[in-house]
Amino acid sequence: MFDSALLEHKLDKKTFKEMEPKLRDDLLDQQFELVQQKRRTVLVLVNGPDGSGKGAVTNLIYRWLDARHVKTLAYERVNDEERRRPPLWKYWRDMPAHGEVGVVLGSWYHMALLAHAGGLIDTFAFEHALNQINRFEAMLHSEGVELLKLWLYVPPEEAARRREKARKGIDIDQSLIIEWDAVSKPKQRQKFQEIAQNLAYLTSTANAPWNVVPASDPDYRAAAIGGLLLDALKRANRPDPTVPVPSEAPSAATISTTAPAVPRVSILSSLDLTKALDKHDYDEELPKAQHRLRELVHSKAFQNLGVVCVFEGNDAAGKGGAIMRLRQALDPRRFAVHPVAAPSDEERVRPYLWRFWRNLPARGHIGIFDRSWYGRVLVERVEGFCTEADWRRAYDEINDFESELHQSDFLVVKFWLAISQDEQKRRFEEREQTTFKRFKLTPEDWRNRDKWPAYEVAITDMVDRTSTTYAPWTLVEAENKHYARVKVLKTVVSRIEQALEDR
Amino acid sequence: MFDSALLEHKLDKKTFKEMEPKLRDDLLDQQFELVQQKRRTVLVLVNGPDGSGKGAVTNLIYRWLDARHVKTLAYERVNDEERRRPPLWKYWRDMPAHGEVGVVLGSWYHMALLAHAGGLIDTFAFEHALNQINRFEAMLHSEGVELLKLWLYVPPEEAARRREKARKGIDIDQSLIIEWDAVSKPKQRQKFQEIAQNLAYLTSTANAPWNVVPASDPDYRAAAIGGLLLDALKRANRPDPTVPVPSEAPSAATISTTAPAVPRVSILSSLDLTKALDKHDYDEELPKAQHRLRELVHSKAFQNLGVVCVFEGNDAAGKGGAIMRLRQALDPRRFAVHPVAAPSDEERVRPYLWRFWRNLPARGHIGIFDRSWYGRVLVERVEGFCTEADWRRAYDEINDFESELHQSDFLVVKFWLAISQDEQKRRFEEREQTTFKRFKLTPEDWRNRDKWPAYEVAITDMVDRTSTTYAPWTLVEAENKHYARVKVLKTVVSRIEQALEDR
Repeated sequence: MFDSALLEHKLDKKTFKEMEPKLRDDLLDQQFELVQQKRRTVLVLVNGPDGSGKGAVTNLIYRWLDARHVKTLAYERVNDEERRRPPLWKYWRDMPAHGEVGVVLGSWYHMALLAHAGGLIDTFAFEHALNQINRFEAMLHSEGVELLKLWLYVPPEEAARRREKARKGIDIDQSLIIEWDAVSKPKQRQKFQEIAQNLAYLTSTANAPWNVVPASDPDYRAAAIGGLLLDALKRANRPDPTVPVPSEAPSAATISTTAPAVPRVSILSSLDLTKALDKHDYDEELPKAQHRLRELVHSKAFQNLGVVCVFEGNDAAGKGGAIMRLRQALDPRRFAVHPVAAPSDEERVRPYLWRFWRNLPARGHIGIFDRSWYGRVLVERVEGFCTEADWRRAYDEINDFESELHQSDFLVVKFWLAISQDEQKRRFEEREQTTFKRFKLTPEDWRNRDKWPAYEVAITDMVDRTSTTYAPWTLVEAENKHYARVKVLKTVVSRIEQALEDR
Repeated sequence: MFDSALLEHKLDKKTFKEMEPKLRDDLLDQQFELVQQKRRTVLVLVNGPDGSGKGAVTNLIYRWLDARHVKTLAYERVNDEERRRPPLWKYWRDMPAHGEVGVVLGSWYHMALLAHAGGLIDTFAFEHALNQINRFEAMLHSEGVELLKLWLYVPPEEAARRREKARKGIDIDQSLIIEWDAVSKPKQRQKFQEIAQNLAYLTSTANAPWNVVPASDPDYRAAAIGGLLLDALKRANRPDPTVPVPSEAPSAATISTTAPAVPRVSILSSLDLTKALDKHDYDEELPKAQHRLRELVHSKAFQNLGVVCVFEGNDAAGKGGAIMRLRQALDPRRFAVHPVAAPSDEERVRPYLWRFWRNLPARGHIGIFDRSWYGRVLVERVEGFCTEADWRRAYDEINDFESELHQSDFLVVKFWLAISQDEQKRRFEEREQTTFKRFKLTPEDWRNRDKWPAYEVAITDMVDRTSTTYAPWTLVEAENKHYARVKVLKTVVSRIEQALEDR
């Protein structure tokens, strides 16, 4: 991969001077289109050893483009807020909107590379990390982020020489040094080079290939990067980016929602909705579970655990009531409820999951999502708010998201609250009668009832495809509210107990 | 203030049970209106000694209202991100949108009270802090935030007894304890009580009065708070909140923009726009200033200083070029440029300054604002995008904002880049000619030229009223770009040098 980069690449100053004006024109034209149309975001990942000119490249991009729509995403020491969340959180936090260009210094490759080079993770773990990165990038690409991955190549000896020079005296290059390959001995350098090469091979994908740029000669480097940036902007401006067709391997998701060839058995049919709890038992069991939850949350071990609770369910199934009983048990400084509403314009111009990442609790806290990222495979699928390709790829993306949470010591507890159609009708009618409940009911709620069968298919697919070992669904028989609330509380308690034991 | 609260306040359970359903109906009705109309935000500040039931009150609000539109703002230990910014930053970060109800535990009174009770600040400093709070709250009120300030009163002995009880065994109250008055000895308690009383007197204002709620009896407490909350929601739903009329004391701001009785002398007329720097001097002086800036930013002392640079100026005055020369000198991980564009919908439903607070750099960083909070007294004033009352109060609000930055070791450097009308015309025409500059020019730019005289008045007012000792304006003669860029660089350098010396 770096083979051709080893050859000498030079461009004489005069040639570059001649080509630059046209290049700048084209770049600005394309950026103008990007800013106007806001179709996609362009993320430029600037990677390479210190001394390869990462800082100079960043400044070049700023000089060429209209700097008002360029943003730097640069990461130094990890701070409190970052330490208490999954590693990717900081990139989500800083995600530029469509129409913007982001320059990433210290990208997600940084961590994997450092950990492996430092012997902290073995080859298998390294490959696993790279696979995750590939899926992350595929998701970004599908969600409107065009990636330009640059690897600035200079022969290791030259890079070392440059670093040495930069360390003496203050100049621009020194201020831009990113200390991620303080690899001093030639042998280590060699190993590092091999790892980097391996990384580049394993993460060059169709939609996010690596571009190795010979970076010894500044003019050559500038011209090469200008061309690559122009291509990336053009791709981002394409009116209709080719949507990757999901593989047609047999899976629950390939079953049509509208006219299944064979009627599917709904996962919900397995539930015994007659399950109930009388008032007396409820008054005894609920406070007991709440008390236990309080104990757990105040334990020392809990400070290193994050908890994400997801509440999905039929309309009027009692999500709000169940959440309220959870809330009663919890210190308001330690939890937050995030109802999912129509996306804001800031959310609309970023990848779908951004709206959830931005509300992710820190470890030691509980985040409760009243509806969630499953909206994509439920309401958006059934109502046709997203394309079929979108909801089909969503299952894997959600599993990846939850897996990342799991790996970062976040517990994901997911509930589907199920009621029968009859019970729902009864509750709707009751809401119409009760003054202070009536604004919980909208005409849309009545309309949704007509789509009950389509939702059953969607729910079954969802549970089949996203009930993982690390984040299983809990189906809650919610016909009887007492029973449902106690089951929710007890499930949260036992999942936390188990997570604290496993640690 | 607490006198009547000392009397016994009780409500029998039966009376409360009878009044509760109607209260809940009314609360939900008003909240529904709030959510629908999104006219204002309601912030409930729950204050009082530990053991007075702050947690119970919070849970009550959640139970009564539709919890999906209620948010808790609770503050524990200060984290990295908070420590590196002004004290109010965290409240801005968490500011709920219009239509939402926020419950604040650990409000801005917390710090002042603790610092004074602990002997860290004297009476004068305490009063100063309370004055700042008054102005902050007045600004919030004008900007669409309805405040409900609750002081839960229980006799000191009773509060101490309750805290003791709560500390044993796990129950809800303990989990909600906010450790801000660990005042154990009776004499200290007495002093604390006096300070609290003083605070309540000094910060009870027309639009944000304190409500002292006798909190010994839970039913009385609940009924009282229910009534106060209902009033606050009603005030927030008023279609036309009375805008406070700014005082008509003589001030630059009282001069009309359109037809001044006496022609005013523009502050800009004092500038000598013939000032220039030839290419040779520029090539020498610019790198020198950049080098010095780099040195300063990399000094250890700089890590505790935040820098905010504001760029305002005529269209085409060269703000972008000046910013670019600053950027060249700076590590991209240490600075960010924030161009001011049309507000997003998330910005539109929060106080005006929120959009700037959210981009405030941490100490050790430089934030560059390409246009800024001065938009309100420039373009919004001239174009009539805000009411006269809005821009008239903006001067004081801006001064308060910058004063707060100053007090928190942030340096505020403000530039007005001035060119003549002729030079502007020349640059516009040049932009039309040059391909890669042409998208910097919009039809609006031509239209703005017609309002040159109105802008001159607005600029003069702005400089007169917001050039403070801690955040003076620097007027930059920008007819010659070389001169302007070097002046900007040198000013930033000398302001930082001075700030580091003063420390």
